[in-house]
Formats: sequence, C-alpha cells, structure tokens
Amino acid sequence: MGVDNFKEIAKLAKQSSKKLATLANDIKNKALLNIAEELENNKQAIFEANKKDLGSAQSLLESGEISKSVYNRLKLDENKMRDMIQGIIDIYELENPIGKILMQRSLDTGLILTKISCPIGVLGIIFEARPDVITQISALAIKSSNAVILKGGKESAQTNKTIMDVIQKALDKTEGFPKNAITQVFTREDVSQMLEQDKFIDLIIPRGGNNLVKFVKENTKIPVLGHADGICHIFVDEFADYEKAKRIVVDAKTQYPSACNSVETLLVHRKFSYKDELYKSLEESGIELIFSPESWHIEYSDTKLAVKEVESVEDAIEHINEFSSGHTESIITEDRENAQKFMAAVDSAGVYHNVSTRFADGFRYGFGAEVGISTNKTHARGPVGLDGLTIYKYTLQGNGDIVKDYAEGNKQFKHKDLV
Amino acid sequence: MGVDNFKEIAKLAKQSSKKLATLANDIKNKALLNIAEELENNKQAIFEANKKDLGSAQSLLESGEISKSVYNRLKLDENKMRDMIQGIIDIYELENPIGKILMQRSLDTGLILTKISCPIGVLGIIFEARPDVITQISALAIKSSNAVILKGGKESAQTNKTIMDVIQKALDKTEGFPKNAITQVFTREDVSQMLEQDKFIDLIIPRGGNNLVKFVKENTKIPVLGHADGICHIFVDEFADYEKAKRIVVDAKTQYPSACNSVETLLVHRKFSYKDELYKSLEESGIELIFSPESWHIEYSDTKLAVKEVESVEDAIEHINEFSSGHTESIITEDRENAQKFMAAVDSAGVYHNVSTRFADGFRYGFGAEVGISTNKTHARGPVGLDGLTIYKYTLQGNGDIVKDYAEGNKQFKHKDLV
Repeated sequence: MGVDNFKEIAKLAKQSSKKLATLANDIKNKALLNIAEELENNKQAIFEANKKDLGSAQSLLESGEISKSVYNRLKLDENKMRDMIQGIIDIYELENPIGKILMQRSLDTGLILTKISCPIGVLGIIFEARPDVITQISALAIKSSNAVILKGGKESAQTNKTIMDVIQKALDKTEGFPKNAITQVFTREDVSQMLEQDKFIDLIIPRGGNNLVKFVKENTKIPVLGHADGICHIFVDEFADYEKAKRIVVDAKTQYPSACNSVETLLVHRKFSYKDELYKSLEESGIELIFSPESWHIEYSDTKLAVKEVESVEDAIEHINEFSSGHTESIITEDRENAQKFMAAVDSAGVYHNVSTRFADGFRYGFGAEVGISTNKTHARGPVGLDGLTIYKYTLQGNGDIVKDYAEGNKQFKHKDLV
Repeated sequence: MGVDNFKEIAKLAKQSSKKLATLANDIKNKALLNIAEELENNKQAIFEANKKDLGSAQSLLESGEISKSVYNRLKLDENKMRDMIQGIIDIYELENPIGKILMQRSLDTGLILTKISCPIGVLGIIFEARPDVITQISALAIKSSNAVILKGGKESAQTNKTIMDVIQKALDKTEGFPKNAITQVFTREDVSQMLEQDKFIDLIIPRGGNNLVKFVKENTKIPVLGHADGICHIFVDEFADYEKAKRIVVDAKTQYPSACNSVETLLVHRKFSYKDELYKSLEESGIELIFSPESWHIEYSDTKLAVKEVESVEDAIEHINEFSSGHTESIITEDRENAQKFMAAVDSAGVYHNVSTRFADGFRYGFGAEVGISTNKTHARGPVGLDGLTIYKYTLQGNGDIVKDYAEGNKQFKHKDLV
C-alpha cells in the first residue's frame, strides 16, 4: 500500500467509523465470532505464512539485527493461536461499551441532558513483531465501534497479511458490518502518512520499543496513547517484612525482565535492618545490583537492577516523582501510614503496596484485554481496555426550549440528577 | 516575567502540583473562601486597574484594533465582580473531585485494585481579554488540586496583575496551601515557552479565538483541550413543528451571535411545508440568510446564517459529519425515529432534539463552572468542568503477592467487583 493511497484509506476508515458508531451490538458480536471461526479454519495458512517470516527472521537473528526475544514474539504456534482465538471470545463476552448512560440530569422540566458513551472514531495502531496484536486490537476496535488502521513490523509481514485476509473474509460474511473498518498498511511511508492525517485519525497507539513511541509522540498532532519508558520502582521501607521484600523484588525483576512493568530501580530505606541480606539474596537470584546514579535513568529490560538507599518515605517519593516514567511503583512495608503516604503522593499510573509491579496489566486487572499501557496524564492511564477506546457525547432532549428564557430570568434551571 | 524564567516557573509549578495532589479538601476550600473575601476587600483596586486597561483599550477600539465585543468583555463592574465572587463560592460548594473511588475490584483474595481520581498536574491556560477567567480557572484548579500557569491578553494586563496579586495574598494567608500553585505570565515569549515545557506542563487550555487555538494546537506536544471553530448546525426536519423551529433558530442565532454555540448553518428538509415562512420570519428577526456552499465552512459569529436544503435526515447527518466542527447540533422534529437517528449518528460533543444549541455550556449543564468547551475526541468532550481536570490512578493493595504464582498456575485470578 503506497503513500498515495494512505489518505484515501484514512478517509474510508473515517466514513466507516460513522457507520460503526451506530452498529448494533449483535452485528459486532457476530463479526467477532466469525473472526474466531475463520482463524480456526485457516490456521494452517497462517502457520505457513509465519514459517516464511521465521525463515527470513532466522538470518536477521544470526546477523544480530533482531534479538532472540523479538524472534520468539514473532513465532506463532498452536498454543498462541488458541490464545488468540480465546482472546477474541473473551472480548465477545464483554459488555458493549457503547451507548452506556454515564450521567442523566434534568436541567429543567422536560429538558433532559444525557451523557452517553460513544466510540472515538479512527484508531491508528503501530506495532512491532507480534502478529497476535492484530487479532487483539481488531477485536477491541470492533467491540468499541472504532475503525482501525494497523501497521505491523516488517518481520511479521507475511503472517500479518494472512491474518488480515482471514479477518476481512470473516467481516465480509458478517451481514451489515461496514466495509473499510479494519485496514492494514505496510510501509514506513505509511507511518509518516498516518501521523499526518489528523483530520481522519483520532488516536494513535504505538505498541513497541521506546524509540518507536518517542518517534510517534514527536511527529504527530494526533493524541498518542502509550508509554515510552517503563522505569518502575520498588521502595523497601524501614518497616518492610524481609521475606515479602525479597519475594516481590525477585518476581518484579526476574519473572519477565524485558516487560515494561518489571522493576528497574530498588529504593531501600537506610534503616531497613535486613538490607544486606536482601542485596545478597537478590544477587543469589541472579540479579546484578548497580549502585550508581547513572543507573536511575535506565530501563535495563534485563536482570540488572539499580539500587539507591534513601532516608525516608518522603525521600523515596521524591526520587520516584523525579525519575519514574509514571508507569508503576510499589512500596514494601508493614506500616500502614507510610503505605498510604506513598500511594497518595506518588504520581504514577499504578501505585502498589506489598505487591509485585508485574501486576500492571489489563488481563490481570480483569479488563479482558488491553490496547496497551498508558503513562499519559489525560484520557486514559495505566492498562487500557475497552473503556479507553470510548469517549462520550451529550444529548439534550427538549420541547422548543431556548436560552433566552433563562438569560432573561423567565425560567430557572432546576438541575436534578436522574442517573 | 521573561523567557529565562519560564522554565523555572514551570518547574516550581510541577513541584507545587505534587503537594496539591495530597492537599486536604478543607485547605482547598479555605483557600477559595479567602480568595472570595480578598476580592471583595480589594475590588476598588481591581476596578482602578481595570480603568487603566479600559483607557488603553479605548484608543485600540477607536483605531479598530479591537472590536466592541472585546472591549465589553474587558470591562469589570460591580455586577461582574459579584458574579466572579459568586462563581468562586459555587466552586467551593462543589464536591471534592479528587480521591473518588471510581472502581474497586478484588483480583484475588486480599489483592484489591482501586481506581481513584487524582489531579492531572500542571495546567497551562492561555486566554484573551476576559479578566474574570483568572478567578474562575484559579478556583477550578484549586478545587481539582492542579497547579496552573495563566497567560492573559495584553489588553487586560493591569487588571489581570491586580487580580492575581489579590489571589496570591489570599493563598499566602491560607495555612498549608503550597507556594507556586498559581502563577501568571505576561509575554508572547512566555506562550512559546509554555508550549515547549512538556516535561512540566500536562495540559494546555487555550480560551480564545480560532487563531489562538489553532496556533496552540499546531505548536505543542502537550495535550490541548479546547475548540478552534464552533460551526453548529440546526436541522429542521420534514416533521418539524414550525413554531418551535422558528423560536429555536432565532434563539440559537440572535441570543448571543458571537458565542461558539450559536448556530452557523441551518439545514432544512426540502419537504418541510413551512420553509418559506421560516426563511421569512428569520429575516424579519434580523437574520441574514446566505444560500451558498462557501458559507458552510464559515463561523460568522454574527447574525448571518448559512442555509442549505437537504433531502433527508441521512443527508443532514452526512452534511454535519462533513462540515461540523464537532461542537453542538440540533434536530427540530416531531418524529421520534428521525430524532433518534440524528442523535445516534451525528458525531459531535452535543446532539440535541428540539432545543437551542445555545444550551451547550457548563453552567447550563449544571457543572458549576467550566474551563472551556472541548471538541476533542479524547479525554473530555463538550463543556468541561472539574471532572475534565482529573485523571485517575490504580492502587493495588496486597500482602506479598507475586505474578509468578499466577503465571505458573499455582493461583488463579478471581476478579470480583467491589465498587
């Protein structure tokens, strides 16, 4: 899909989004079931396409152009396919997020204001080598009545193309489902074009490394939802339980070191009696501890952990509010007051007490699925599920009501909440 | 306040915002009462400063550099001052928007997720010649625990400065209220600097003309809340009641023609029996009707009204979704089905039935006050009150919980909603 076409794609997506906005929930759900069914029916074709991508990736892996973890994320097998299909069924089972009455208020007799959830419009998704993102995002977009334009990584181009063909086939056979709701683009130029189409695209979600997210944020006027860094902190307070501290830090650092919700900096209260034992046991768990200020800025995505000793909970809060990327932080303490102070004052999407930072995830939060994790301070924060793909509008129902009557004092508002 | 200082101001505002985030509601309310009291005590000084601004504005008015309506908005009198003070009391009386539990869910036994409202951080407000904006925005910022940097129009510089001095005096005597929560800047260079400080400023709200809002949106990476155009539509359906149609269109066009929620384009169903009578009566009300396609793009802010005849409600919806700025649109009809179709399919912040578009306003909606009206598709839409100045964070309370237990199947999530 070349540059010339992108604007047309975006325009068609916008037109489609208007139809999606009023689409019956039954049709959306039928589309999801059809996609699940077609994926099951066509999984061999998808595996074959994936083998081609893996073949090309093999040489990139050998030459060091991609990492082993990128290679692994690219690979689709029966298990992943089952999860992909189950993920669509899970979204099918979620409540319709559109048309919910969020507030209803009588402004005066017979003048009823209603705040009602509606889709955002057109989403632009840029993701790297994880073909399972396509089905997940497509399903979330369908359920939330948004149109979506997807741009995947070139490493998974064959797989992505085949999956998208299957999705299109499923949508084509869903009666009443609008055309052009889900489109895929492939080139680098498409990304540049996507970032420019603020007339047609309402929200960009980059899913990938730090560099991708930063590039997107710096090159578009369209709102961007996501997170560049994941510099998460754990603060082991003076009043921490040693066993809990050890168990939580090991989990947060080693359970999946390259995840964005893994801990990167450990803050330890100088008066914590077991601090030396803690350091020792972390090292025994294979964690490399780094005691230098340069490390406070770094997302290692590895089994390395920056360590800093602090004087107080206030000191820890200040460090976090200065160095954190606003993702997720946890305090380990048996002191309820310190925990409350920490959770109130730390300005991050997730603030935890006696829990591993690794819980920051849409599935673990019970959202069914997530489009990503946001460190924004507006719209949506933390793991973003269906709710983050909606906005609202206000309807006002009257019977010839005019403002002049109120401006001139002939009538007075009698605001009364109904819902 | 020069360019060199701006970054420092923004940094101090950010520090202050961290203190505001945990400030007791009592202190915020005391600050609001103190501001109301000090405004009352110092109103003569404010009126005198305002006279100086009006003196300078007089010559700008005569030379045509500012309009009569700008001059009028600049003017403060006893009535406006009473409204300003009452506006602060109204915000004082509103519920604390911070610390609200928006959702609470047990992820597993003893593992409790809570979604809790919190402030956004630092707001940057750019406004034109309306000094009453300062007290309104300052009060909203205080109540919502946000720090704010205000940049007013140069026409009202003396008035703005005096009002801000009064506010600072009131805050200084409010025990426990943090320093640097509310700051004012004055120069054009301050605006450029403000738009660059994405590290310290979390949300920009431009309140003013189309050009200001467009300039801001095009020159910052910080999220912007507002609306550039206000091209609102009224659709008079085939099944409209003639008297209601006339009454509503006259109100929406003439009650305050320069307001952003005034109607700019009238769509009339070709089969509406009274269309000629309607046109005639609108002209008799002093409205100039313009029947040309060029007018569909124009926000007249005057008693001019673009008119287009359409074939159907679908045709009207299509026109609106193409030409509207997404602010507010109204259908006039006695046909419930057409009304519902219109309200579901029109993609604007406000979609009305048998009501004047002039109702699109935070006070009329019962929000107590508004920071502005947003045509964004993310974060906040329509009139934005205290809620639009908040975001949320997730707290997670556990007792040594780690993800490994769930990843390895030793434990299963039992998502159960508590609130």
